[in-house]
Amino acid sequence: MHVFQKATNQRTRAINEQLVLRTIYGRAPISRAEVARVTGLTRTTVSDVVDQLLGSGLVEELGLGRSTGGKAPMLLQVPDDARHLIGIDVGDSQLSGAVVNLRGEVCERLELPLDGRNGEQALSRLEALLDGLIATVERPLLGIGIGTPGLIDTSAGIVRWAVNLDWRELPLAERLQQRHQLPVHIANDSHAAALAEFTFGGHGQMRSMLVVKVGRGIGAGVVLNGALYQGDGFGAGEIGHSSVADNHRPCRCGSTGCLETIASTRAVVQRARELAPHAPESLLHAVASPDGITFEDLVAAFAGGDQLATEIVTDAAHHLGRSIGALVGAFNVQHIILVGEMTVFGEPWLAAIRREAHRSALALLADETSIELGRLESNLVVLGAAALLMTRELGVSLGGAG
Amino acid sequence: MHVFQKATNQRTRAINEQLVLRTIYGRAPISRAEVARVTGLTRTTVSDVVDQLLGSGLVEELGLGRSTGGKAPMLLQVPDDARHLIGIDVGDSQLSGAVVNLRGEVCERLELPLDGRNGEQALSRLEALLDGLIATVERPLLGIGIGTPGLIDTSAGIVRWAVNLDWRELPLAERLQQRHQLPVHIANDSHAAALAEFTFGGHGQMRSMLVVKVGRGIGAGVVLNGALYQGDGFGAGEIGHSSVADNHRPCRCGSTGCLETIASTRAVVQRARELAPHAPESLLHAVASPDGITFEDLVAAFAGGDQLATEIVTDAAHHLGRSIGALVGAFNVQHIILVGEMTVFGEPWLAAIRREAHRSALALLADETSIELGRLESNLVVLGAAALLMTRELGVSLGGAG
Repeated sequence: MHVFQKATNQRTRAINEQLVLRTIYGRAPISRAEVARVTGLTRTTVSDVVDQLLGSGLVEELGLGRSTGGKAPMLLQVPDDARHLIGIDVGDSQLSGAVVNLRGEVCERLELPLDGRNGEQALSRLEALLDGLIATVERPLLGIGIGTPGLIDTSAGIVRWAVNLDWRELPLAERLQQRHQLPVHIANDSHAAALAEFTFGGHGQMRSMLVVKVGRGIGAGVVLNGALYQGDGFGAGEIGHSSVADNHRPCRCGSTGCLETIASTRAVVQRARELAPHAPESLLHAVASPDGITFEDLVAAFAGGDQLATEIVTDAAHHLGRSIGALVGAFNVQHIILVGEMTVFGEPWLAAIRREAHRSALALLADETSIELGRLESNLVVLGAAALLMTRELGVSLGGAG
Repeated sequence: MHVFQKATNQRTRAINEQLVLRTIYGRAPISRAEVARVTGLTRTTVSDVVDQLLGSGLVEELGLGRSTGGKAPMLLQVPDDARHLIGIDVGDSQLSGAVVNLRGEVCERLELPLDGRNGEQALSRLEALLDGLIATVERPLLGIGIGTPGLIDTSAGIVRWAVNLDWRELPLAERLQQRHQLPVHIANDSHAAALAEFTFGGHGQMRSMLVVKVGRGIGAGVVLNGALYQGDGFGAGEIGHSSVADNHRPCRCGSTGCLETIASTRAVVQRARELAPHAPESLLHAVASPDGITFEDLVAAFAGGDQLATEIVTDAAHHLGRSIGALVGAFNVQHIILVGEMTVFGEPWLAAIRREAHRSALALLADETSIELGRLESNLVVLGAAALLMTRELGVSLGGAG
């Protein structure tokens, strides 16, 4: 057989295997005949592939289903715990990790503070966290997924630039692969958050969504037609460093006026520290020293109806809303989901974002776009990192109704 | 055979036919054996499909090629004039149309002024143009492609909203299909312009690009991984109506501060009319009456180094640059191409756009992004409409190296 033809056949087999696994994962319990009907593959092909999947434990037989005339069909499913996955969230101040199963259920969780560590020290910390998690795993381990801030080349597994960690051109995936002898996949944390919402957020048939993560940094993850869209250089959704104002406020990226300098948690705290001394009536004025104002102080003042806190948060939402309006026009993706620490400001914050996003985009497009808070309360990046691993290694996703 | 299986087989045949045609179109002269090698299809399948294509005249035999050992192979190609296509550009003031061949070469051109017609009258004008063009066609006609401003549902063939023409929810494709008994495909004019650059612009291996059309209106067409990306509601690239300034200038869309109110040809002419009376030293001051200043006057003054004209054009470019910077962050598509009437301001305009786009996006992404003027001098939307028709009916595209 011709070498090229052989390669093609191997690729076809791999595609068929992923197609069958995805179908069983998304539609279980399901019979071989039904898999053949749904996928359009022949029954022989389906039987061969299912035999392989039974052998590797990724599929199991459930028992006989109801007969529709002939012999009762054997039903198949993917056991939730057929594989376990490790997902890691490289945060600004701590590393969080979990062992999860194929449905995104958390079996084990670990956290390690970074305490200001960066570079090689942060990396050692990450390895320690992985060692700790791997020690708890009692099922076949599929691999490791990692979500980290910065510009991440998901294909090559390289952290191109993560400013807080001082990682540059770091071949993170290869390094961890060699250490742990497991598949490792890495992605930007906002991209991971988008995969988490898409895969485990219960959004039903939704095939495309923008997930905007607003915390200490701001970034979006883009899911188009069921797949993560990362752009030519893996920087898609990098909206935090787009200029939105001529405020000359310096940004950690080296530029000024970036969205992050107005709408991030860092920015609103900074603003509160600047304005509190001049607002004697504000709850924030009462904090021991202005420079001691924390995000939690601002959240408490906002919850107490404090006017200064409300103004700061609304202004942040207004600018974020305009950037989101620009995304409405650019992508025309009709489902926009907000996640991250800033969502703690809830409905008033969301309302201000919706108002400005609607005002600043073509009405016909804005009318058809929903802007909502995310559905996953915690472990967002951890789950997204696991979803990345699952998608890349098994071709399996629960998103967009499988 | 099961109905579903049959449908799958028919679909497989159609996919194979498009794959073979695309391969011959992009790599001619090529032998059947080479097509099999490139596509990974069996020789028998390729022979069957080629027989069909020879029968329909879409492929022809060129003669024997050089032997590489065995029998000399028969070489195949797609004749440039195997089909002719009609492409239409629904402009603001006129309708332009052309008959082109499968390489985008224009065989015949017609224009009809709209003279302020809209609604049903503009539609009659379009039908008259089509009658005129169809009468000139001497080859098998593949169909009609149309590019028009506004929000266009390409799948359903419906003009959802074209403000200048006062067309709303107009089933344009169906109406023309019935009249002319030919396949009809329609798209937004910026989307068509993007397809034109992608298909006929000679951009080689480039698989993704943003084409920003800056004329009386402003809009972008998005090509991602070799295909036109239109968004959930066909509004992708609708950047002209994103708010970029709090200038309160009313936009024809009903909002204020839209990019179109600052960076379009209309906006710069408007600005010149406002400022010329206060600038006695300007060439624009010499125009008979300020309200009589035309786009051509502005172009002439700019070419003459007039300071006011330079300021107006540079300011327009600055705001456009910021919007393009936002696109760099949103899509991270590394090739951005500018087309439309504003490109007449050439290098100084382009330099101001590049400067602000670079400043207002993350440096690492901006460094890897090129912003260039388009390569097609004329007939952009006409050619794009033809490319749309060709892609949808034959699955054939020259873009991204076939």
